[in-house]
Amino acid sequence: MSVETPAGRASNAMVSSDRLWQDIMALAEITEPHRPYTRRSFSDWFLDGRKWIETRFRDAGMSVRYDTAANMIGRLEGTEAGLPTIAIGSHSDTVPSGGRFDGILGVLAGLEVIRTIRERNIVTRHPIEIIDFLAEEPSEYGLSCVGSRAMCGHLPESTLALQNSEGESLRQAIARIGGNPDELASARRLDLAAFLELHIEQGRVLESSGTDLGLVSSIVGIVRLEIEFLGSADHAGATPFDLRRDALVAAASTIAAVRSIGEQYAAKGSGYFIATTGGIHVEPNAANVVPRLARLIVEARAEDAALLAAFVADIEETSNLASANARVERPVFRQLSDSLPAHCDPRLRAHMADAARFLELSSVSMASGAGHDSSFIAQIAPIAMAFVPSRDGRSHCPEEWTDPQQCADGAAILLETLLRVDRDEAFDRPSFITGNIVRTFA
Amino acid sequence: MSVETPAGRASNAMVSSDRLWQDIMALAEITEPHRPYTRRSFSDWFLDGRKWIETRFRDAGMSVRYDTAANMIGRLEGTEAGLPTIAIGSHSDTVPSGGRFDGILGVLAGLEVIRTIRERNIVTRHPIEIIDFLAEEPSEYGLSCVGSRAMCGHLPESTLALQNSEGESLRQAIARIGGNPDELASARRLDLAAFLELHIEQGRVLESSGTDLGLVSSIVGIVRLEIEFLGSADHAGATPFDLRRDALVAAASTIAAVRSIGEQYAAKGSGYFIATTGGIHVEPNAANVVPRLARLIVEARAEDAALLAAFVADIEETSNLASANARVERPVFRQLSDSLPAHCDPRLRAHMADAARFLELSSVSMASGAGHDSSFIAQIAPIAMAFVPSRDGRSHCPEEWTDPQQCADGAAILLETLLRVDRDEAFDRPSFITGNIVRTFA
Repeated sequence: MSVETPAGRASNAMVSSDRLWQDIMALAEITEPHRPYTRRSFSDWFLDGRKWIETRFRDAGMSVRYDTAANMIGRLEGTEAGLPTIAIGSHSDTVPSGGRFDGILGVLAGLEVIRTIRERNIVTRHPIEIIDFLAEEPSEYGLSCVGSRAMCGHLPESTLALQNSEGESLRQAIARIGGNPDELASARRLDLAAFLELHIEQGRVLESSGTDLGLVSSIVGIVRLEIEFLGSADHAGATPFDLRRDALVAAASTIAAVRSIGEQYAAKGSGYFIATTGGIHVEPNAANVVPRLARLIVEARAEDAALLAAFVADIEETSNLASANARVERPVFRQLSDSLPAHCDPRLRAHMADAARFLELSSVSMASGAGHDSSFIAQIAPIAMAFVPSRDGRSHCPEEWTDPQQCADGAAILLETLLRVDRDEAFDRPSFITGNIVRTFA
Repeated sequence: MSVETPAGRASNAMVSSDRLWQDIMALAEITEPHRPYTRRSFSDWFLDGRKWIETRFRDAGMSVRYDTAANMIGRLEGTEAGLPTIAIGSHSDTVPSGGRFDGILGVLAGLEVIRTIRERNIVTRHPIEIIDFLAEEPSEYGLSCVGSRAMCGHLPESTLALQNSEGESLRQAIARIGGNPDELASARRLDLAAFLELHIEQGRVLESSGTDLGLVSSIVGIVRLEIEFLGSADHAGATPFDLRRDALVAAASTIAAVRSIGEQYAAKGSGYFIATTGGIHVEPNAANVVPRLARLIVEARAEDAALLAAFVADIEETSNLASANARVERPVFRQLSDSLPAHCDPRLRAHMADAARFLELSSVSMASGAGHDSSFIAQIAPIAMAFVPSRDGRSHCPEEWTDPQQCADGAAILLETLLRVDRDEAFDRPSFITGNIVRTFA
């Protein structure tokens, strides 16, 4: 990674660090009181948070509407009729006991961009929209990125039938909070010139290298595998090595292979690659019994879809060998989910890099290892993403933290990128990236 | 292992295969009806089973008493006054949803020995006892081998204070079923000439080699380790390999080392050695989060106590290296329990091998990888044990199975060994194996 480090520090920024910070802290107050910070999508807290945001959107001079998928959209018209929309967006929902920045920063920084535009009497040729996508985090209905899926036409009837634990369907829930599931097709957008998202990094790369901004090259594709080994639950004392069929031994060998093969792929130079064994289930899981069953959940993420396919083939082979060595069966080897990488638009990335130089912010090109609403929007518009640092890489927890100045840096990069895109006639017509077809996203 | 295979087949056996089998099947009927085969120690089913056994003991001509630790003891007097007792014993309690043979065979085969002695008008010089030890299996009070511990003076006040989930103490439970915890010291036996135990193998060694009998050389010592690795619960997508601290990767490396180092120790030629990672606990155990914590339960069993100590030192070093490689901490490395091996008496083993030859049964010398009442009794008397085959090595489950003829072979080896010991003047005085000090037994 090559870090670009200018001499100075964001002195060209027009946004207000204090105003943005106060918004972030104020929205954080709207939370389930006994487990901050929690505003799960579809909950009363989430709707209260949205009302609070809607009021600020209107105060900033935007019109506000809900599309049929219950995405909340603030809009500022441009000066030239007929130009497509430049959109900025992220999400205001949280995971249970989540943080104050994940998603939220992207929405409130968009608000700060609009306020700055208005108070500086800046006009844009294109209309600008700030989008609060519905339910980016995994919802009670078992689906994430509900709003961004709908906006690119990927919310089929089968997913609308998903139910929460109380038996309410996703269809009913969307209708309850102001959407119109019968007219979902109209949520699909064909009028976007460009889409920009600011997000916290949720990792340690920026912090550990002391870099202000991450300029995202691609959002990784993700493949998840379930691998099950089946041996025999023999007496751990009475069964010698040559007679035992230990499922955990095969699993351990596979966990090691996921790491070592993953490291080889990461070193290939074909972009970001990461692999993790995050989940393990063992039966009977008793000190004095040879493990009969071991089930692993393995995940790989990459910018290069071909690497993901090759990794799956390698682990298929390695885990098969591991099961043969331990004399166990491998009855299950299957892909639980599979999404393709989404690539950021080169022209938008160039504008963003130029904006960072103008703002005298150091930046690094990096992949997003986490999924975002942008992954879906990449199917209907050119996208670009910027990251600001996460302290200790923490996210999805109350300790999630990004400094006020770092948040303001993020708003500044959105504004300066937006102004450059607005001036660029290449974005005067809607554009589709047809190569990015996201199949599923977990 | 060298198998001794005579030409013929148990034609010299005096015991009745049918009678023994009918007893085993009849006792199996006394079970919790909805989860056969369950007669947990201290339960009404257990007490019903004991009443049934007591009646048969008396019918066979034995006197029956309960010692102060509530061991049930049938006794047949010998012809020479003042000789110490030759005892045969095992246990009639089961694990929940256990089998029909584990422990039970050893008690009922003892009964069959006495019946055969009586009906053939055989007389013995020594008194003979058949002991049904209390609570060999882990009881609701968290302790196993309660009766055999007491018989060698290892049931201290601290263990008597253990309580079941309903708040009854072990002390109260022993009193409830006919023991006298205030006089526990009198349960200690100093008058045993020899102790013999017949048990099912609970493994596949005999079946896979087609051998009739296992003649036990030693009962293994057992050491259990708890090893905990502590890393960081980072985002599985946003955290590159060089920044992650994956506790499961360190654990997997250690699981592999337990197996490979275990196999090296088993190949050393210093007797039986086996090692198992049976238990694993991982947090947060989620597909998209790098594992923060991994806790392993590792067990090793060996005939040679020095090997156990060396293995613990090796795993201490290997797991430390694994944690360093994965950049995680290893806050816990501790021994949960530790018992020394118990060795069978060479003279008794020679009598047993001679008896096998006489009965034309093939036999193999082998270690017991499982713990037994004999492990404790070895502290107060010379012991010997014989195994009969377990189908598919299954035990502690309803599928546990040993053929009728194999059960009868077991009773025959007990009887023929007993008669040889009874004739051997070396067993005319009580004997102590002072080298076998069992500290704990799990």
